[in-house]
Amino acid sequence: MTEQLAQKVLTGNRRAVARLITRIENNHPHAKTDLATLYPHTGKSHLVGVTGSPGTGKSSLVNKLAKACRQKDKTIAILAIDPTSPFSGGAILGDRIRMNELVGDKGAYIRSMASRGSLGGLAAATDDAIKVLDAAGFDVIFIETVGAGQSEVEIVKTAHTVIVVEAPGLGDDVQAIKAGILEIADIFVVNKADRNSAGRAVASLKMMLELGHPTSRVIMHHGQMMQVGSDHPHKVQPCDSADEQVSTWLIPVLKTVALTGKGIDEVMTAIDQHYQHLQHSGELAERNRNRLRDEVRSTLQLKLMRRFLAKIPSDDISAIMSEVINRRLSPYNAVQQILDKGF
Amino acid sequence: MTEQLAQKVLTGNRRAVARLITRIENNHPHAKTDLATLYPHTGKSHLVGVTGSPGTGKSSLVNKLAKACRQKDKTIAILAIDPTSPFSGGAILGDRIRMNELVGDKGAYIRSMASRGSLGGLAAATDDAIKVLDAAGFDVIFIETVGAGQSEVEIVKTAHTVIVVEAPGLGDDVQAIKAGILEIADIFVVNKADRNSAGRAVASLKMMLELGHPTSRVIMHHGQMMQVGSDHPHKVQPCDSADEQVSTWLIPVLKTVALTGKGIDEVMTAIDQHYQHLQHSGELAERNRNRLRDEVRSTLQLKLMRRFLAKIPSDDISAIMSEVINRRLSPYNAVQQILDKGF
Repeated sequence: MTEQLAQKVLTGNRRAVARLITRIENNHPHAKTDLATLYPHTGKSHLVGVTGSPGTGKSSLVNKLAKACRQKDKTIAILAIDPTSPFSGGAILGDRIRMNELVGDKGAYIRSMASRGSLGGLAAATDDAIKVLDAAGFDVIFIETVGAGQSEVEIVKTAHTVIVVEAPGLGDDVQAIKAGILEIADIFVVNKADRNSAGRAVASLKMMLELGHPTSRVIMHHGQMMQVGSDHPHKVQPCDSADEQVSTWLIPVLKTVALTGKGIDEVMTAIDQHYQHLQHSGELAERNRNRLRDEVRSTLQLKLMRRFLAKIPSDDISAIMSEVINRRLSPYNAVQQILDKGF
Repeated sequence: MTEQLAQKVLTGNRRAVARLITRIENNHPHAKTDLATLYPHTGKSHLVGVTGSPGTGKSSLVNKLAKACRQKDKTIAILAIDPTSPFSGGAILGDRIRMNELVGDKGAYIRSMASRGSLGGLAAATDDAIKVLDAAGFDVIFIETVGAGQSEVEIVKTAHTVIVVEAPGLGDDVQAIKAGILEIADIFVVNKADRNSAGRAVASLKMMLELGHPTSRVIMHHGQMMQVGSDHPHKVQPCDSADEQVSTWLIPVLKTVALTGKGIDEVMTAIDQHYQHLQHSGELAERNRNRLRDEVRSTLQLKLMRRFLAKIPSDDISAIMSEVINRRLSPYNAVQQILDKGF
């Protein structure tokens, strides 16, 4: 029965895909067996993460990119991740709007995932859902997050290609958010570029890339593609040929108006070029390795804690905790005592 | 020497406070000893968490609340937490602006903390920094976060009183963020309430409290304070007396214009009332217990992982990981194999 479900996923059966992702969300006992069956068939999809501040129009952008993929006969899946919402499975309003645009298209699959428990739980469920979509044969999987906090960054940064979306005029806090997000971006998109202040947003992004991000290899400078050596963070060198775009990745800053479709082609080209770059440079394999290492590490941490706590009488832990609560034993020293009991 | 530093913190010495928080951020070997010395003197401050979407004007609001506390002769500390920024110690521009307003006031201390490593690391460092400020004798500690993602929620939700800040006209995504943030709010503030759409923002918040949040005990309804029984999520009952505000907490939705100071007094009153409610209902003790339990759990998890991995030959882990990378062994089954080796 469970073997059947995994086999159906491998044929691309959408109902099977939906059922298995629901099993994953619900921690169904058979989900891990299904995933083990699927696992050898994964590793073929291009994973595109899309993140950015609220109000940037990420969802519209992803929608337009998905449609552009379909026009090139690529099959696509969209995973919309909302770490702050208890709703999943398409209950988010935005999904319904999207559904209308891609509805009836068998080459497109849209699913939202939300946090039922911990953030770690959501990240693990997202990893597993990606495996299901990957094994089901979707060419491109968009992983879209609602916010731009650290949690969203954690989930999106394991994608092969990370698109960070900005929009003009979102207030000062946005500047602060950018600081952390610079490191994970492979492509910057300034959406809502028909607004007056779009030019300023692009200029400020380029400046932040240049000043605030010494490890970024490459930036756009005064509208021309330039390279920044990582050893010499402030030294800027021009990049001459299109071949170099494949061997050394130049982080582009692109303008779009998702509602009208303006600039979507350029983003599509950048996505394709980045995937080629990853393949040719060997970075694709490296990102896949890191993905898997992170996944093993976080699952191990969870299981370890469970096994450890099962070994210690709960009365012992209660006694230690009441010392902590009465401010006689510091939390740190309490941990030492618990470790000494069980390890 | 380290004993001296902790003793100086207990006298409220600001340089000692700053030095110890820096030690915490840098994982200085003596920091845990200092904290153990301080720990019996903690548990006295009122911890007020402030979170909300970018662009809501959280920092200005916290600034005004801090000044209002000072006018009542309460000493205050502000911890500004930025999970997405690598800068700390007051390097954030917003802090400097604030510093100008509270500068030279010995009863006010402002500090920013940022993520140098993992989010878990930041949460732990924040917990420890709060202990330092608590032991130093600050009456109120504001814990302010930059964003509104799950990570910020995780950090802020351990405060005694959680203020969620919204502002009119921040776009559709904000709605989605609200869904997850409802559960942690003790007080809602709609800032920038001089904007036209402020009324709509307040109404939409109240509606979301009513519809989307069956566990919320109490809401504002058509401008009147109402109680919602958690057994009957849709049944609304009026709340008659001010005493009830102390025994059962009614989540207020308040309007402010932080820049002009409008509405600040009402927020101050709500903060005080909530603290009284926590003390009288026994919830203060419960929140403190939960705080400490969470802290012990996350520290234990970290230490456990470190000790476990130290026991297993790294070649064994490499061999298992290469099976995973070659898609022959699923990550989940890999974790089982690693656990079997060491536990």
